[in-house]
Amino acid sequence: MDADTPVNPVDHTLGRILAAVAAEDHPGEVADYIPELRHADPGLFGVGAVSVMGRRYGAGDTAARFTLQSISKPFVYALALAELGVDVVLDHVGVEPSGAAFNAISFDDAGRPLNPMINAGALVTTALIPGESGAERFERIRQGLSAFAGRRLQPNDAVYRSESETGDRNRALATLARASGVLASGVDDAAEPYFRQCSIEVDCGDIAIMGATLANNGVNPLTGVEVIDARTARRTLSVMASCGMYDRSGEWLFRVGMPAKSGVGGGIVAVVPGEFGIGVFSPPLDPAGNSSRGAALLRTLSREFGLHTFGHPTDPLSPIEAVIVDEAGTVTFDVRGELDFAAVEQVSSAVRERLSAEGSARIVVDLASVTWVSIAAGQLLEALIVTAREAGRDVTTIDPQQRISLAPLAASAE
Amino acid sequence: MDADTPVNPVDHTLGRILAAVAAEDHPGEVADYIPELRHADPGLFGVGAVSVMGRRYGAGDTAARFTLQSISKPFVYALALAELGVDVVLDHVGVEPSGAAFNAISFDDAGRPLNPMINAGALVTTALIPGESGAERFERIRQGLSAFAGRRLQPNDAVYRSESETGDRNRALATLARASGVLASGVDDAAEPYFRQCSIEVDCGDIAIMGATLANNGVNPLTGVEVIDARTARRTLSVMASCGMYDRSGEWLFRVGMPAKSGVGGGIVAVVPGEFGIGVFSPPLDPAGNSSRGAALLRTLSREFGLHTFGHPTDPLSPIEAVIVDEAGTVTFDVRGELDFAAVEQVSSAVRERLSAEGSARIVVDLASVTWVSIAAGQLLEALIVTAREAGRDVTTIDPQQRISLAPLAASAE
Amino acid sequence: MDADTPVNPVDHTLGRILAAVAAEDHPGEVADYIPELRHADPGLFGVGAVSVMGRRYGAGDTAARFTLQSISKPFVYALALAELGVDVVLDHVGVEPSGAAFNAISFDDAGRPLNPMINAGALVTTALIPGESGAERFERIRQGLSAFAGRRLQPNDAVYRSESETGDRNRALATLARASGVLASGVDDAAEPYFRQCSIEVDCGDIAIMGATLANNGVNPLTGVEVIDARTARRTLSVMASCGMYDRSGEWLFRVGMPAKSGVGGGIVAVVPGEFGIGVFSPPLDPAGNSSRGAALLRTLSREFGLHTFGHPTDPLSPIEAVIVDEAGTVTFDVRGELDFAAVEQVSSAVRERLSAEGSARIVVDLASVTWVSIAAGQLLEALIVTAREAGRDVTTIDPQQRISLAPLAASAE
Amino acid sequence: MDADTPVNPVDHTLGRILAAVAAEDHPGEVADYIPELRHADPGLFGVGAVSVMGRRYGAGDTAARFTLQSISKPFVYALALAELGVDVVLDHVGVEPSGAAFNAISFDDAGRPLNPMINAGALVTTALIPGESGAERFERIRQGLSAFAGRRLQPNDAVYRSESETGDRNRALATLARASGVLASGVDDAAEPYFRQCSIEVDCGDIAIMGATLANNGVNPLTGVEVIDARTARRTLSVMASCGMYDRSGEWLFRVGMPAKSGVGGGIVAVVPGEFGIGVFSPPLDPAGNSSRGAALLRTLSREFGLHTFGHPTDPLSPIEAVIVDEAGTVTFDVRGELDFAAVEQVSSAVRERLSAEGSARIVVDLASVTWVSIAAGQLLEALIVTAREAGRDVTTIDPQQRISLAPLAASAE
Repeated sequence: MDADTPVNPVDHTLGRILAAVAAEDHPGEVADYIPELRHADPGLFGVGAVSVMGRRYGAGDTAARFTLQSISKPFVYALALAELGVDVVLDHVGVEPSGAAFNAISFDDAGRPLNPMINAGALVTTALIPGESGAERFERIRQGLSAFAGRRLQPNDAVYRSESETGDRNRALATLARASGVLASGVDDAAEPYFRQCSIEVDCGDIAIMGATLANNGVNPLTGVEVIDARTARRTLSVMASCGMYDRSGEWLFRVGMPAKSGVGGGIVAVVPGEFGIGVFSPPLDPAGNSSRGAALLRTLSREFGLHTFGHPTDPLSPIEAVIVDEAGTVTFDVRGELDFAAVEQVSSAVRERLSAEGSARIVVDLASVTWVSIAAGQLLEALIVTAREAGRDVTTIDPQQRISLAPLAASAE
Repeated sequence: MDADTPVNPVDHTLGRILAAVAAEDHPGEVADYIPELRHADPGLFGVGAVSVMGRRYGAGDTAARFTLQSISKPFVYALALAELGVDVVLDHVGVEPSGAAFNAISFDDAGRPLNPMINAGALVTTALIPGESGAERFERIRQGLSAFAGRRLQPNDAVYRSESETGDRNRALATLARASGVLASGVDDAAEPYFRQCSIEVDCGDIAIMGATLANNGVNPLTGVEVIDARTARRTLSVMASCGMYDRSGEWLFRVGMPAKSGVGGGIVAVVPGEFGIGVFSPPLDPAGNSSRGAALLRTLSREFGLHTFGHPTDPLSPIEAVIVDEAGTVTFDVRGELDFAAVEQVSSAVRERLSAEGSARIVVDLASVTWVSIAAGQLLEALIVTAREAGRDVTTIDPQQRISLAPLAASAE
Repeated sequence: MDADTPVNPVDHTLGRILAAVAAEDHPGEVADYIPELRHADPGLFGVGAVSVMGRRYGAGDTAARFTLQSISKPFVYALALAELGVDVVLDHVGVEPSGAAFNAISFDDAGRPLNPMINAGALVTTALIPGESGAERFERIRQGLSAFAGRRLQPNDAVYRSESETGDRNRALATLARASGVLASGVDDAAEPYFRQCSIEVDCGDIAIMGATLANNGVNPLTGVEVIDARTARRTLSVMASCGMYDRSGEWLFRVGMPAKSGVGGGIVAVVPGEFGIGVFSPPLDPAGNSSRGAALLRTLSREFGLHTFGHPTDPLSPIEAVIVDEAGTVTFDVRGELDFAAVEQVSSAVRERLSAEGSARIVVDLASVTWVSIAAGQLLEALIVTAREAGRDVTTIDPQQRISLAPLAASAE
Repeated sequence: MDADTPVNPVDHTLGRILAAVAAEDHPGEVADYIPELRHADPGLFGVGAVSVMGRRYGAGDTAARFTLQSISKPFVYALALAELGVDVVLDHVGVEPSGAAFNAISFDDAGRPLNPMINAGALVTTALIPGESGAERFERIRQGLSAFAGRRLQPNDAVYRSESETGDRNRALATLARASGVLASGVDDAAEPYFRQCSIEVDCGDIAIMGATLANNGVNPLTGVEVIDARTARRTLSVMASCGMYDRSGEWLFRVGMPAKSGVGGGIVAVVPGEFGIGVFSPPLDPAGNSSRGAALLRTLSREFGLHTFGHPTDPLSPIEAVIVDEAGTVTFDVRGELDFAAVEQVSSAVRERLSAEGSARIVVDLASVTWVSIAAGQLLEALIVTAREAGRDVTTIDPQQRISLAPLAASAE
């Protein structure tokens, strides 16, 4: 952008909030249980955001590198769901919050780790990724995570070796999972690729893109690649929402309301479904293992910008742009935008009210400005028109893009 | 509606799904731990739905009465949040999923019940409602729940007495809460109003309205009364999402994706934020204590109608209805609908692209069709315009409803 | 004892050990969770010991008064076993160590508190003591504890009121027990007598006598009163051994090896079955809630005096005092002391060896010096003699006190 | 034994009880979680007993072979205590009952398995046995267990392979222990020797000898070899008493009162300290994993023969055989047998009473018939005599074996 272009207001806003949080006191300690992580500079602090339109924003230390650690978990889980389907994955790992720490030994009565966000569940998830060996498995994971990020990601070897050298507890969790029949590979063929996926190096822009891919129904908004399907994205977000922030997950959903996942490397990825992916990075961790300033920044963002999952406008945009009555008494409903079930419910209600009030008038439902119709919404619309016709009313549609299919119903009406 | 009005398609659809679920095998047992509940007719099955526009739908046994039981919990929690504020409430009861059954003894290190959806937390919540006595406290709760439902609700005395007679475990939980300093009343002054709130009698339409009130930012869509504020509604939905379905809450969010709360009376309330409240009723319960057919119906509704919280359209409606370039080169951005942060980010990006490409042109941002602007969105818009002006660009707005405030900024720019 | 009688060596030894422990550093804090307990003088330190012969010893602050607190638990448990029998008591409270703190919420699958040494189990035990009211129940407990101590014990009213005022957690435990069907009384009719029994005032000599009564098969060695039967005493000691020292019970048995019970008032009662009851008192408690110096003193006593339950002489005294062969070749086995199974096994083996070696000799078993014969030992002796006679051997007994009964067997042999 | 020797009465009694238990209904299932164990004949039932005098008894299927399984745990623990000392061992594994099943994941705050009787603790214990490799470690264990049994024991290779093949859970426990820093070897170098020790083949006579060695202060009563010292034996018995019967340990101590350890192979070893080791074998297990008929037989033995640890004679044999007053008024106390603290307390009391009553008489303490004096008892005796002399009394001893040492004290008295 040339010099006289004004600084864009999103960057400006992110910078303002980052500076404000940096000026506050958010005590924390750099993780030390993996020796290599101790070297992180506690002063680094950056944020990146990527919209589902693919626009990128950022402030602070956006170029600082860190390792994914547990942030890899939801994305590898998404890859497993996409590869094997939900039933196979649920046979191996549950989706219930454990109320426990990340390295807890939490298995349910069926022998499954409680969820894929704790280490035991993440190891089981990694083992599900197809591969003849641990190395092959990791290569597939690396490719998948790279597709989420839109660039070729690489592990940090020093961190990987450090993880592997101190990884006995994770090997024990994998062995327990194997003993209860839910580890689809050998212990080392799960643990080693898991240590490698944790050691993949990113910056906060990378994880913002990864989050934006989940926000965008699984399609990377920068590359346009569909990494996973929309249903898998939704399921992954559900697990992040209920289990993503360790034993603070409930409070996070309550206060921040964005599906998110933190890693002990100091990163947090957060998602505003349908809108943004956000990545933050600051190494000092709070006692629950979440980046202390990173969490504070996301709380502020959520509060100031109304990003809470369960916040929403009081008066949603009406799907009916206009109701036009011409001289002949014909009533045209000018329907616009995307039609989901709730939108068609509004259209249906308006049309029926008109049918009820002025029984004899001709009704036209104009779908020319409609950009998308969900399956259920289409069925509702079809049912509306067919039942009206069967009752003897004159209802027609303007539907140049054939959003709905009335032929068989119309036939049956005659 | 007169005879020749066609059956409305929402009722038709609800009826179709209800019939389908009724024809399937969903084993369950009518609750028997409160003697009076044993008398429920296991064959009853009804569903009601109420949109945030206040339209009501239903199918099946919509007139069948049942008692709220645990469905009262999120609503009383909402009342407590509204009365006392989030900080006081969080001092007494947490918001973390417990991974445990409804009657579990789950207190955190601070002595708080883990969340308000388990009995211990619900008792603590009830004790927070102001009142000189248990009776006064209950009267306030009854009024609040009535406001949610839009009609005067009453307890079923036989059920209340049965709850009270067999309520030793709940009294023990209240006593434990008192011992750890989080019960704001005497044991009986919490337990008795709690037993009464559980015994309040409703039908599935009532709980659909109660849910719709949460869906509608706390405003009852039928009466127009603001029962709670929007933030309280959002927080209540968060707790329902993470803790509402006992130890199946994670799976519910994963599969169904609607904040919900079940009761052992056989009811379930579910919410599609910004769109619908849904109430279902069928007495037989699954092993987790949720209505077996009720849960199945909600799963089907969610799947068929795309009601999952984290599901959303792939290409959201653009907030820019048109970009009009007149002969003089003036570029007008015709902005419409509701402007949240994400919408303004799109507007901002489009405007800045134009500023960048054609530096000399005049820009008009037309906000005449805008129906609502969030605070953050307004700030972003203002920042966009002011910084452009400071950079010497000619940017004006058409803003007949004064959605944004440029005066002070414009002043400071001169 | 007149002036020129030397100080008795047991007192001397107790005094020496007490002084040594007092000179060591045993950090601890006076209990403060019951307000009245805070007033205890942390410098008090006393020990008392009472042999099963009824002799009393002591050193240090033997006159200092303190309240029984949890020391009441095993004795009230013994009273319940004696009143109701083991089956009824086991239906209400288990005997498994909980590995948990004294106020833990530990119920087993049958709804029973895990053992009578944790508060929940102690409340259930108190409720089992017959009584129309809490007051009547307490009076019976007071009488029973007084019989154990050999003097009329009285509660300290200030401590009792303090216990009752701060006793919500115990009331909650009682209510939970009631809810699971194992509390045999109303909540207050268990909790109030429990608070009173905890507040009974004693000195370390009193609890030494109480322990000596357990050591002496339930007979108070000073008064001669059989407070409970021998089997109940043995069972009570078993529960003290496995559960008496809270979550340090295993280590206590390992290191000290005396069944014991501590109270937060600073007292500990310990028992050397068949030999001694010991009472110690020093208010500062270790983190597990046991008197810090009291435990140290008992450890030293056990180590120096070989009081560990599983310690025993390497070569036990032979029950055969002499084997006398007279001129006629008659072999007389001069048996002495108490004959349990193990002793008779030795006698039997010796007699059979002789029978085997010198088939023709006459054998006499002289029981004149025998002081006691267990039932099983008597059966073994009878079987030995009868089978030898049946095999044609000449075996006779000298049994002036008729310790065994050979008549019917002898008859059948002829 | 020749034909006309009568059947010995101990065998006769064991046979009678075994037949009685076999005729009762004791439901159970042969262990199947290690495939090889499934082949056990459920009808086998045998019992062996060995006294500390080295005499052997038995009834039923005494020749039937089975594998030690968890019965190996206390003996390997004893070997570790003997090799490394109690402090090192306690740094690695605790001694608290877990209240949990044998394969539970129970580690304390210090990262130690709760006790050596659960698998995690047994693996840690095995790893403590010195050895360059797993094979070397096992060889040392094999030798130690063979010393306990008095014959060269060997593993059953088929069972070993089966254990190893299905041993993932145990490997996981070892890995967890390694992760918490308490496994002194590599995972396989602990797990493989552990699997081998579990698969060592014995009969019920073998484990009776092993138990008798613990009963006999660590000296094998058949071979005379001191396998471990007396203190280690006592400590091992303590852990068996509190933790030996899984989550039934408390009830076992309460009802049976013998330190014991069961194995899923169907064996149970029980110890009557100072008297007997007992081994039983019957493959079907109760739900807690203890041999169903084996446990019943031990319960019956304990009850009928008074073998409960806390049962003891009401009037113990007096250590004073006679008090003889000659014409000159000299009073001779004829002391006999083994003198522990309690015995000397009786002697001391009697002597002091005489000193008090008849101040002028000459006193003789005759220790000629004394067979053993504990250190503490010796000190007490010395203190008695010295203090009496210091008070001017004429007290002498007859002590041909120099049981006590009066020289320095006597010197100081002059």
